[in-house]
Amino acid sequence: MAFKVIKENVLKDNDRVAKMVREDLKKNKVLMINVIASPGAGKTLFLEKAGMSLKNAGISFEILTGDCFTSRDAERLDAAGLPVVQINTGNACHIDAGLVKKALEEVRLDEKDLIIIENVGNLVCPAEFDVGEDFKVAFLSTTEGHDKPIKYPLLVKISNLAIINKIDLLQYVDFDMSFFEECIHKVNSALQIMKISSKTGDGIDNFVGWIKDKIKMKKENVE
Amino acid sequence: MAFKVIKENVLKDNDRVAKMVREDLKKNKVLMINVIASPGAGKTLFLEKAGMSLKNAGISFEILTGDCFTSRDAERLDAAGLPVVQINTGNACHIDAGLVKKALEEVRLDEKDLIIIENVGNLVCPAEFDVGEDFKVAFLSTTEGHDKPIKYPLLVKISNLAIINKIDLLQYVDFDMSFFEECIHKVNSALQIMKISSKTGDGIDNFVGWIKDKIKMKKENVE
Repeated sequence: MAFKVIKENVLKDNDRVAKMVREDLKKNKVLMINVIASPGAGKTLFLEKAGMSLKNAGISFEILTGDCFTSRDAERLDAAGLPVVQINTGNACHIDAGLVKKALEEVRLDEKDLIIIENVGNLVCPAEFDVGEDFKVAFLSTTEGHDKPIKYPLLVKISNLAIINKIDLLQYVDFDMSFFEECIHKVNSALQIMKISSKTGDGIDNFVGWIKDKIKMKKENVE
Repeated sequence: MAFKVIKENVLKDNDRVAKMVREDLKKNKVLMINVIASPGAGKTLFLEKAGMSLKNAGISFEILTGDCFTSRDAERLDAAGLPVVQINTGNACHIDAGLVKKALEEVRLDEKDLIIIENVGNLVCPAEFDVGEDFKVAFLSTTEGHDKPIKYPLLVKISNLAIINKIDLLQYVDFDMSFFEECIHKVNSALQIMKISSKTGDGIDNFVGWIKDKIKMKKENVE
């Protein structure tokens, strides 16, 4: 019982900070999305590709990239000419609202349209923390298997978009796309599913289109 | 600071229970290993294949399979004729010593040589919890990329064996095995690395040989 109460308090503190972050973003009309995936699902390559397209589309954004240790992802994104702030969590398995608030102190929000959070590789804990984002994105990959949506349902339940990456490997792995879609919709019946390959670039345009729509809605203050 | 103290207390309580589990296993001369991996790294297929080999070698074992929700893995292992106890963690991202202790109440330890824990898919939190095991196994896969050992160093640091799965996909993914080995040994210079494919069965025999050695040592009470 003690642990449950402690956890509730930790989440309550987090929610208080998340609210502050959300208000700050609202004031500046900046959209924030939180991308959550397993280790090695291909988040960073995806952000390299999507980031280039967003840049070419004239969208002003910042990537907050989370990792326990190392700044390898930030270095990759920086080398690709993309604006990035590294968040190191140490042995913590998720990014919380406090870390996002601190990272945003490095960002001129009044000059941005969009903040993209690349969370720590983990399907469980990051799903529990509101960090002030507008949307959570469940980012999965074909090599992880088609049953992950029902094995890690919280993430699917609270996400506003599901991305299935590595469709270029479909012919080499045992992955049943219909079953995957069925699993997603069993947990979250209305969830939009986007099929992409960060490697080939397939589907990246759909994601950029989705983001542009959401930025427009945020600027127009449509809830 | 408050959160750090809370975490220390949670870990202290856990360690007390882990000690009880370890003493019980020692009394019964039963080896226990704790397999830790990302979601979709291929733990369950690996345990199906390795479990069949262990069974054929006359080793008496039980698999404790952890998942947030569903009993899909337990059903798969049971269908393969393997002895399994399901541990559901709800939204918790790891198996702790208390869950292992409870699961072991379902097992006749005096009739077993080996307990295999299949942890919740997560590279971060499960590495922090001693559950009374003799050895932790870091179970990675080629599709996750070659840099995971330095991005999730705690797991590599505290593991006694590293397995790299899905070597059958090496030709389709950007994975540099030398760099992977270098990353492993940067964190844990003496760690043994085993290359396997659960799909083709390559390397499973090496793992079974390793386990047989460790069981022998445990029975002979070699520390």
